[in-house]
Amino acid sequence: MLITIIYIGSSNNLLQDVVRDYEKRIKNIGRSIGLKEIIYKEIKNSNKKNVTEKKDEETKKLINQKEKGVLNILLDIEGSKLNSVEFSEYILAQADINQNINFFIGGSEGIDKKHFEDFDKIISFGDLTWPHKMFKMMLLEQIYRSITIINKHPYHK
Amino acid sequence: MLITIIYIGSSNNLLQDVVRDYEKRIKNIGRSIGLKEIIYKEIKNSNKKNVTEKKDEETKKLINQKEKGVLNILLDIEGSKLNSVEFSEYILAQADINQNINFFIGGSEGIDKKHFEDFDKIISFGDLTWPHKMFKMMLLEQIYRSITIINKHPYHK
Repeated sequence: MLITIIYIGSSNNLLQDVVRDYEKRIKNIGRSIGLKEIIYKEIKNSNKKNVTEKKDEETKKLINQKEKGVLNILLDIEGSKLNSVEFSEYILAQADINQNINFFIGGSEGIDKKHFEDFDKIISFGDLTWPHKMFKMMLLEQIYRSITIINKHPYHK
Repeated sequence: MLITIIYIGSSNNLLQDVVRDYEKRIKNIGRSIGLKEIIYKEIKNSNKKNVTEKKDEETKKLINQKEKGVLNILLDIEGSKLNSVEFSEYILAQADINQNINFFIGGSEGIDKKHFEDFDKIISFGDLTWPHKMFKMMLLEQIYRSITIINKHPYHK
């Protein structure tokens, strides 16, 4: 299984070390569920000043990255809420059938809701709003946690 | 208003820079709502190997930090879920009456549920489990976001 994280704009530089730490940890235990690699696609944010135009342009840029045969999952506050055990069960179910996943993270304006139906699934990380520049790290945390839950590794407690 | 964050165990070292960045940003805009300072109390984690004993000891250590006249708020996955706007309204309501707040963050085993009633309020940051060593940073993020929402600062979008 490959996991690709596709996101608008750069990540917070101050989170680089913790992101690298999660990458290392995921690499070490990812093979236990057949996770070969995490791939990143950083999409340049729109320079449009008008909020609607910016959101439209960024939504289109993300939609263009969708791939056939890959599970295209949008992360959005208005998606279905899972707890960490449910998230890990979902990841494991995909790993079991070697199903590649694309995770999409929107920019500061999020994704135009009328395009929600273009994704295979929309997952919410809860009711709180988080900086989109922090979200890659939060997703890596939950992917790492998922694998530790599957492996019954003490981390997940 | 003073906000005190009381937590078990140290924070993740890799998050130091981002924590400092939030501290600076909160300091700059906190005065707009009368937030004078954020104080930290790091409580040493229990060395007990037995999970229940560890949880008991850490719960007691946190309970001992409760203060009269201060709003003692526990952050726990099983608390009431707020979105970022509701969280900011709650913070603002306390700031308006100059009510000091203690935020309590448990250790890796969390807090013994039978002590939930000892707190004035229990707030959940959602259904996902996060590392307790990351939680101080996540709380600072939501406090900073709260102030930007109150100030209608563009950050919160």
